Amino acid sequence: MLAENNYGKSGIRLVKVVRREGRHDLRDLTVAVRFDGGYEDAHVKGDNAAVLPTDTMKNTVYALAKDRLEGSIESFGLALCAHFLEAAPACSKVTVQIAEHAWERLSAAGAPHPHAFLRGGSERRLAETSRSRGGAAAVEAGISDMTILKSGNSGFEGFLKDRFTTLPEVRDRIFATVVEARWSYSAADLDFGRSFDRARQTLLETFAVHESASVQHTLSAMGEAVLAAIPEIASIRLSLPNKHHLLVDLSRFGMENANEVFIATDEPYGLIEATIRRSQS
Amino acid sequence: MLAENNYGKSGIRLVKVVRREGRHDLRDLTVAVRFDGGYEDAHVKGDNAAVLPTDTMKNTVYALAKDRLEGSIESFGLALCAHFLEAAPACSKVTVQIAEHAWERLSAAGAPHPHAFLRGGSERRLAETSRSRGGAAAVEAGISDMTILKSGNSGFEGFLKDRFTTLPEVRDRIFATVVEARWSYSAADLDFGRSFDRARQTLLETFAVHESASVQHTLSAMGEAVLAAIPEIASIRLSLPNKHHLLVDLSRFGMENANEVFIATDEPYGLIEATIRRSQS
Amino acid sequence: MLAENNYGKSGIRLVKVVRREGRHDLRDLTVAVRFDGGYEDAHVKGDNAAVLPTDTMKNTVYALAKDRLEGSIESFGLALCAHFLEAAPACSKVTVQIAEHAWERLSAAGAPHPHAFLRGGSERRLAETSRSRGGAAAVEAGISDMTILKSGNSGFEGFLKDRFTTLPEVRDRIFATVVEARWSYSAADLDFGRSFDRARQTLLETFAVHESASVQHTLSAMGEAVLAAIPEIASIRLSLPNKHHLLVDLSRFGMENANEVFIATDEPYGLIEATIRRSQS
Amino acid sequence: MLAENNYGKSGIRLVKVVRREGRHDLRDLTVAVRFDGGYEDAHVKGDNAAVLPTDTMKNTVYALAKDRLEGSIESFGLALCAHFLEAAPACSKVTVQIAEHAWERLSAAGAPHPHAFLRGGSERRLAETSRSRGGAAAVEAGISDMTILKSGNSGFEGFLKDRFTTLPEVRDRIFATVVEARWSYSAADLDFGRSFDRARQTLLETFAVHESASVQHTLSAMGEAVLAAIPEIASIRLSLPNKHHLLVDLSRFGMENANEVFIATDEPYGLIEATIRRSQS
Repeated sequence: MLAENNYGKSGIRLVKVVRREGRHDLRDLTVAVRFDGGYEDAHVKGDNAAVLPTDTMKNTVYALAKDRLEGSIESFGLALCAHFLEAAPACSKVTVQIAEHAWERLSAAGAPHPHAFLRGGSERRLAETSRSRGGAAAVEAGISDMTILKSGNSGFEGFLKDRFTTLPEVRDRIFATVVEARWSYSAADLDFGRSFDRARQTLLETFAVHESASVQHTLSAMGEAVLAAIPEIASIRLSLPNKHHLLVDLSRFGMENANEVFIATDEPYGLIEATIRRSQS
Repeated sequence: MLAENNYGKSGIRLVKVVRREGRHDLRDLTVAVRFDGGYEDAHVKGDNAAVLPTDTMKNTVYALAKDRLEGSIESFGLALCAHFLEAAPACSKVTVQIAEHAWERLSAAGAPHPHAFLRGGSERRLAETSRSRGGAAAVEAGISDMTILKSGNSGFEGFLKDRFTTLPEVRDRIFATVVEARWSYSAADLDFGRSFDRARQTLLETFAVHESASVQHTLSAMGEAVLAAIPEIASIRLSLPNKHHLLVDLSRFGMENANEVFIATDEPYGLIEATIRRSQS
Repeated sequence: MLAENNYGKSGIRLVKVVRREGRHDLRDLTVAVRFDGGYEDAHVKGDNAAVLPTDTMKNTVYALAKDRLEGSIESFGLALCAHFLEAAPACSKVTVQIAEHAWERLSAAGAPHPHAFLRGGSERRLAETSRSRGGAAAVEAGISDMTILKSGNSGFEGFLKDRFTTLPEVRDRIFATVVEARWSYSAADLDFGRSFDRARQTLLETFAVHESASVQHTLSAMGEAVLAAIPEIASIRLSLPNKHHLLVDLSRFGMENANEVFIATDEPYGLIEATIRRSQS
Repeated sequence: MLAENNYGKSGIRLVKVVRREGRHDLRDLTVAVRFDGGYEDAHVKGDNAAVLPTDTMKNTVYALAKDRLEGSIESFGLALCAHFLEAAPACSKVTVQIAEHAWERLSAAGAPHPHAFLRGGSERRLAETSRSRGGAAAVEAGISDMTILKSGNSGFEGFLKDRFTTLPEVRDRIFATVVEARWSYSAADLDFGRSFDRARQTLLETFAVHESASVQHTLSAMGEAVLAAIPEIASIRLSLPNKHHLLVDLSRFGMENANEVFIATDEPYGLIEATIRRSQS
């Protein structure tokens, strides 16, 4: 018996050149569209009458990008949600996920260049907008692949030990992580760019200054700080892998290693995840 | 305010050589351990007294592999769950995810070789076992990264069209996908290897023989076939990306292309997902 | 001053369905085309008159695949080389690199299915054909991403030690590698499929049965065995990363680990490379 | 018969925290060490007496990082080359390849933070130092994974056409590439950091301002500009994939697309490579 089901198009790679007088701006997005809804006949009978092709979703994203991608990715997502609810009567809920890739303007001869750009890092700004038929829009935003590291004010002590515990207690360790953050907004008509910038800066500053007793401890501080600083954020979920940096044992060679030389590792990694919600008052 | 939270260790890469008389067998696993529970003090106060380090989780996986990794990955996962509930009193629920990578025995001089192996493809067998304190164990299994393709008995016609629709209706197309399947078992004391083999073979055979009107149509048939063939499976979720193969337009060169030559693409891709549950009778 | 230069198209993804009566066969290739030659004006003056676009190279690969991709990838590569030398007068040398991805036919109801397939592993068969204007064709073949492991008959002892050496001598270790092999043929009109199959089987069997004193030792044996078994191969280059498997120290937990439980690692890795040539006699 | 051969350790991941008063600096390197030399007995006889283990190479990189990684990666590489030629008498040539990953200092409360960092993009600074026994050191440097795009001053016209050519001539296209650059220095005692910064800036500025008739045309200009600006660079090799951005045909929907909306693609891609050498005068 068919239960939850959805379909859509993912990996829609869209670049828009915004051509202003004497200056281009660049938008570089990866978009995914998803429909939930009444598609039982498609699944069970092979009847496609209600199915808008995913190829059409893709075409629509490019077509609407021309006029509707002018401000935030959240606004563009909301425009796509509204469009698709009209275009696909059988669809009960549309979700649009957008990742934006940053580009930095190049300089030449000491001045910003009008149309040449350098790709930023792997960090992406995320937006997920969704809308149920007859319901209000929901907007989530976030950050993906933001790699940060602190080489001070981080320890891990006083933990539970059992017969398989060999980890030494440490006052001073490297704390490196790749931030995955998702937060939800309490409204759909905000200045999303401003909220994003403040959330991102709050996450970074809190990470930098926190006296960290563990990844959990700093994660909690980062989430609470975001809720304190940005009232329009209702809750935030953080997923922080602990990218372990192992102190090299140089004593084997008659040398000292005063927390200077580390092996950076990818696997295995700790994974610490939590949601921080605004308390009901 | 701290809401849902979990922590654990991911990416634990474990190889076990099972040394039998005159023949080695190989087990190659990637394990992730996750604790949910009462870790408010760790998050809010930086008090680690209840926190079993993720490094200890890793050590435990290797240590228990020696004696407890003898049969299915589901059994090993259940043993780890039971162990960790004892080791970590603050933990309310343990989840262990295991992916098993297949190796094929090499032959030499016409006979199977006792200790040389060829790595199989990217396909992995998955098991997720979990246990809440005081509750029963839950067992899910699945398949990841199983790439399949059919070059016949697949079309896509009669779909909804709007002004952005350009996709032609096709009677005969390539249907290629990378199967992600997860199913849940109704008990925790089954012959998991036998159930897995039957589920995998049912998925493959149904994909091969189905007269496909769409990805949704074949997904549904694959899920229903698994429920019909394996009574101990309660529900199955399938996630099938549509890896599009575009027919090359050779008419531009005065040539015919009778569904012979295709461009294989990675992006964008359709994504079709559904859960099929056993009907209540 | 412009020195060596080349241009071309890479990542041409081509799938061909060979439609025989009652049975399809599948060819799945990734092709790269490269021109070397007299393109000074393009570089220095921006004059494109001699430049065949890389988009045309791509179109040509798809167009010629219809009639010329019938046998080995080496034959298809040679046909492309001959075509491009005609099409591009300024080009002095054409090189075509092809990787073929394997698919296995699915079975249904106990019989091979006519048009459903399962993707093999990451292993690829390689061919590189090249032809200089007025010269003879050269053909190289190879294997990429073939992961193999032996859990017996492998040690590493008696090595050079210095103050930074901590590696213990071991009689019995896991030897795992991802074979990258390239070999050159002494002629361009061979049964390339047969030669490939024999080279691959010789590499695998030699790896399996060799009493390995080091990666170098086994690499050399594998290369020499290929030259001994396949007279039409003139030389072979092998690149064998040593994918280290670290024995877990279970003695810390009062347990024994008789070469049973290992940590599989990706980084760092040893890398052993050599070319074996047929001796001049 | 054994011909060219080499062995070494790759993927050595090293992070060094340079602890100054009130401020940490971060060095994040991936190092590979390679020995060429007289290792015939290891290959042919399995005699390891001359073989310094790759594990020792790794230990040495970490140990020497403590005192010798203080300036440029080129200096560190040269120190490693000198050390290894002493440590391994059978080795005739040592090559050390280093990639440095950039980190940016975080700010908090408006001031640079003493020990918190944000990882830069995928761009890496490269150095390859090598030294033959009894010979002089050679130093190459470079850049990897630097993604740049220009949305003006780029066309592709007047090219060679044949029956398979369908590409339209364009005056105005997006030119996007991922720069791979390698250059050689004429001496081993330079201010490598200064030379690198100037080479990188010259590449970026030239890309930005060049009136591009093709990728070849701009590649040549970038290489010549580097040779003109940095006298200590003897030659430079550039490898520039053409990451195609396809103009979306919105006319199908009755809309105009004045070079605004593009599909970003990964495959297939053009690949343009050339070496520019300083002319002999």
